[in-house]
Amino acid sequence: MDLRRKIHFLECDRCQRRFGPSESEGTCPDCGPTLGTLTVWYAYDEIARSFQRETLLARREPSLWRYLEILPVPERPALLHPRVGWTPMYDLPRLAQEIGVRRLWIKDDGVNPSGSFKDRASCIGVARALLQGKTTITAASTGNAASSLALFAACAGMRAVIFVPQTAPSAKVAQLLVFGAEVLAIRGTYDQAFDLCLAAAEKNGWYCRNTAINPFMSEGKKTAALEICEQLGFEPPDCVVVSVGDGCIIGGLWKGFQDFLRLGLIQRLPRLYGVQAAGCAPLLTAFQQGQDMAAPLLGGHTCADSICVGQPRDHLKALRAVRQSHGAMTAVEDEAILEAIRTLARKAGVFVEPAAATAFAGLKKLVEDGLIGNDERVAVMLTGNGLKDIATALRASGREPTVIDPDPSQVPA
Amino acid sequence: MDLRRKIHFLECDRCQRRFGPSESEGTCPDCGPTLGTLTVWYAYDEIARSFQRETLLARREPSLWRYLEILPVPERPALLHPRVGWTPMYDLPRLAQEIGVRRLWIKDDGVNPSGSFKDRASCIGVARALLQGKTTITAASTGNAASSLALFAACAGMRAVIFVPQTAPSAKVAQLLVFGAEVLAIRGTYDQAFDLCLAAAEKNGWYCRNTAINPFMSEGKKTAALEICEQLGFEPPDCVVVSVGDGCIIGGLWKGFQDFLRLGLIQRLPRLYGVQAAGCAPLLTAFQQGQDMAAPLLGGHTCADSICVGQPRDHLKALRAVRQSHGAMTAVEDEAILEAIRTLARKAGVFVEPAAATAFAGLKKLVEDGLIGNDERVAVMLTGNGLKDIATALRASGREPTVIDPDPSQVPA
Repeated sequence: MDLRRKIHFLECDRCQRRFGPSESEGTCPDCGPTLGTLTVWYAYDEIARSFQRETLLARREPSLWRYLEILPVPERPALLHPRVGWTPMYDLPRLAQEIGVRRLWIKDDGVNPSGSFKDRASCIGVARALLQGKTTITAASTGNAASSLALFAACAGMRAVIFVPQTAPSAKVAQLLVFGAEVLAIRGTYDQAFDLCLAAAEKNGWYCRNTAINPFMSEGKKTAALEICEQLGFEPPDCVVVSVGDGCIIGGLWKGFQDFLRLGLIQRLPRLYGVQAAGCAPLLTAFQQGQDMAAPLLGGHTCADSICVGQPRDHLKALRAVRQSHGAMTAVEDEAILEAIRTLARKAGVFVEPAAATAFAGLKKLVEDGLIGNDERVAVMLTGNGLKDIATALRASGREPTVIDPDPSQVPA
Repeated sequence: MDLRRKIHFLECDRCQRRFGPSESEGTCPDCGPTLGTLTVWYAYDEIARSFQRETLLARREPSLWRYLEILPVPERPALLHPRVGWTPMYDLPRLAQEIGVRRLWIKDDGVNPSGSFKDRASCIGVARALLQGKTTITAASTGNAASSLALFAACAGMRAVIFVPQTAPSAKVAQLLVFGAEVLAIRGTYDQAFDLCLAAAEKNGWYCRNTAINPFMSEGKKTAALEICEQLGFEPPDCVVVSVGDGCIIGGLWKGFQDFLRLGLIQRLPRLYGVQAAGCAPLLTAFQQGQDMAAPLLGGHTCADSICVGQPRDHLKALRAVRQSHGAMTAVEDEAILEAIRTLARKAGVFVEPAAATAFAGLKKLVEDGLIGNDERVAVMLTGNGLKDIATALRASGREPTVIDPDPSQVPA
């Protein structure tokens, strides 16, 4: 469908000012980059006429492109990586019982091409950049969004300029370099890398994929919610639990559930729970204080590098998602995150990075705190592959190899 | 189907002695562990009556369990990881043109649960161990088979004792530990770890998953060939290219194509090409010298740790696969392997470990040498995820991050 017919308008998350479908690739000029994030709304009534449960059930496309009718591009770009999204959901009855919920599913987004959830947004970002004839695309990232963007830019033959904090884990930096990106490692924080990237994009006319600043990233991220609905037979779970750094993933999930509700594909919405690391939880603070926005936090620290974000760029969308859905924010200590890595590996056979494990640790806490009840059906979003951060995995394992000589008598029974 | 009805017999690869379906979980006693590897043959005529193209086309099961009729277990074990195999095949027209073949597909087995092809064998190994009521399972491995086994053993609640050479990459060891395996790091080679593991299994009554020694591992590995056939509409490619260490994967692929031919599901067989690293190529030497078996090689070395095998345990099956299929063996230098990592990342968006890239580097060489023609349809098997070996990826990238201060004037245009 033509893009101007498909997208109804873009709306400022703060002042509700509306923009035409092609009018902005950034934030609301009245409210600025920190508050003026935009939400994309579609022509739902018209789309719903031909986009129904049966349409989807008949589709074999095993990627997020199965939702083309509600994606902000006119067609699937030929050059992009063919396998993004449509990640597996595992039903885990034993873990459900152990934690104390009626049903438990985990959605394993670590199997995406670059190993993280961020591929959902990056492929949309590159598709939008291609639409506009851009040849350079840029982003600042703690690591996953960057390696993901580098992959999709490489597939599309675009130049990628990536801003990372110098502390980004080496696996993520290795990915960037292998995919051929130009990597600028900033002697500073993620937040500083973010601002630097924004300024460079504006100055050089590069396409900017930055979370929150780019209104179309949520449209990629929302596809995980659409898949959850479809994979559960259009019966959404009672709750969805996900880790939160910038807030874009939880905001995107909420958008996805809303899109499907507006299209009549689901009949009710789940509650959304955001989990932060206790050492860096500005959105939890904002939630607890009843604020609509998060105050920047300096010097946050956690082993979950992907969500170590002091200034959450998608704070408005994240807080709105949690409040509108009647969910909550919570936070967990690093020790609980490490334990969740172990539990997921040993009881579900899924090896995740610390930020992903944070969501699972959060679920345990939410059940203990009585926010999620024992009769509820819960989905946990796992956002990144454990191979992304080996050092923390080794810490989490609580074990060491036993070094022996090649001598049978040294082998334990 | 009952296992005794489904499996016709096991046959020694050297002396052709036959064993009943439950008679052996190891090698032929007459020929010993080095030469007496066994092949599993099914009751094809009976199976073919109800296992046809239409049967498979109607199946939605996105895992190797879609081939249960020709797997050596009576049913799918409930506890095992739900997503093994049925990995994506990517059609790469641009790379096909660049390399000079008519069609090129790559099969990305790095998306398996533990990130490698070996998951296909490990899940069958654990399923067989469960059948026999074993509580401990063991293996020696350069890394991938081990981390894979650790994952499936964890899912099944079994104890895993893993023998690795002390030089195994840390990512693979981290996975082992996270999955809760007992890891014995041997001050010695993979070959020494292998012998030590065999002795310990026999002494302690542990189930042994070792490549070649266990006849059922090939039955897991063959499923990649079955998937290639199905994913190409039952029209196998002209050639399949795969890296070779122990030789079990190429042997397993050949078994898969043969099974489908015997069932009438395909009409012809592809040629199989095995690629070794030039620094450790005992199977290439055996092939060139017209030998049926490989002479052990001491002191082999390559960046492709997964195929750094001086004494290939599945040499009989590997050499037979290459010769019977009218394929060949070849070898590539480490530099070509690093270049293949870059090419696959930057032109196909797939990040692979060195051993996987070896197959792609081999394809280039086979085309240059005229062994694979410009009019041929080729599938390349990619056996492991690039996140498994970050150090080599960094070397392969040929790039480094540019470190800058958070200062716009330091950003290049």
